[in-house]
Amino acid sequence: MPVVTVQMWKGRSTDQKRKLAKAITHAMVECADANPEALHVIIQEYELDNWARAGVLGVDRTDI
Amino acid sequence: MPVVTVQMWKGRSTDQKRKLAKAITHAMVECADANPEALHVIIQEYELDNWARAGVLGVDRTDI
Amino acid sequence: MPVVTVQMWKGRSTDQKRKLAKAITHAMVECADANPEALHVIIQEYELDNWARAGVLGVDRTDI
Amino acid sequence: MPVVTVQMWKGRSTDQKRKLAKAITHAMVECADANPEALHVIIQEYELDNWARAGVLGVDRTDI
Amino acid sequence: MPVVTVQMWKGRSTDQKRKLAKAITHAMVECADANPEALHVIIQEYELDNWARAGVLGVDRTDI
Amino acid sequence: MPVVTVQMWKGRSTDQKRKLAKAITHAMVECADANPEALHVIIQEYELDNWARAGVLGVDRTDI
Repeated sequence: MPVVTVQMWKGRSTDQKRKLAKAITHAMVECADANPEALHVIIQEYELDNWARAGVLGVDRTDI
Repeated sequence: MPVVTVQMWKGRSTDQKRKLAKAITHAMVECADANPEALHVIIQEYELDNWARAGVLGVDRTDI
Repeated sequence: MPVVTVQMWKGRSTDQKRKLAKAITHAMVECADANPEALHVIIQEYELDNWARAGVLGVDRTDI
Repeated sequence: MPVVTVQMWKGRSTDQKRKLAKAITHAMVECADANPEALHVIIQEYELDNWARAGVLGVDRTDI
Repeated sequence: MPVVTVQMWKGRSTDQKRKLAKAITHAMVECADANPEALHVIIQEYELDNWARAGVLGVDRTDI
Repeated sequence: MPVVTVQMWKGRSTDQKRKLAKAITHAMVECADANPEALHVIIQEYELDNWARAGVLGVDRTDI
């Protein structure tokens, strides 16, 4: 019954998410013996002003 | 000081959430001796392309 | 495909958790039209020094 | 590699978040010996009908 | 700056986790254009009495 | 009603956590107008084999 939660910047297409969900599920089955039927992948998308690294918000960073 | 987080598809009405928060709080008090005054219920709503089961996104499933 | 996460102090018995999981699942079905088959309840238990309210750790509080 | 997640009502300005991310990062470095370079602060903002205390949704409370 | 959180039953070896972290990171880079340097994978392991599906705790299920 | 969750390596003393909870609460009040009475700080501690950066588990890293 695993749950995998992905937290990332907003902006991926549905097709990217489709491939990502498939690849993460595959990784969980291959590496952690997970049963895919009960495996959930949850995606949370964040705005640039809702995430900071080293104390600096995404809106103020120049390296992303 | 419990926190209960509900993650589900988008689409419930405020009235459904109102009843849900009340019922979950009641369950926590009855079954886990929680103090309701300090009990938080947090609801996270997800789009169909932000949740997958068995590696298939909600937008691509026909059983939901 | 809802996921409900309960975060609370350590110390409930397996039987309390059993009743809690059942009651929360029932609340989700009744109030939010959830499909119980795909509904997960996850319990996280915390030590008294891993939770604070009003800036005061559980180990230092006298009201819990 | 710490991750700090802040869950709060919607409504803070980017400038408030900017100061908050900085202050939390500073607290983590000062009090928990965190390396700021690898420290993430994630902000989740909630609508009034997605958070309840004592079983009552934010939209129905008069004290917030 | 993505963060991927894996919630699963207790019991995987360090080597399984090693392969899992690598495979998930690879999936994030391939499918979601993530920068691996800032990508965190967090693993949470759960006891059988801290997770329920369909209202039934893991300790009471016969299918896992 | 904010909730702040800190995820970090295992190993901080109760006194470090005490100061951290106080400092984060102070930051939330100063920068985000939070009401301290209803503010929770939750600490999650992780083992070295339950966290990876750049696809490499903490147990295999030499820079932490």
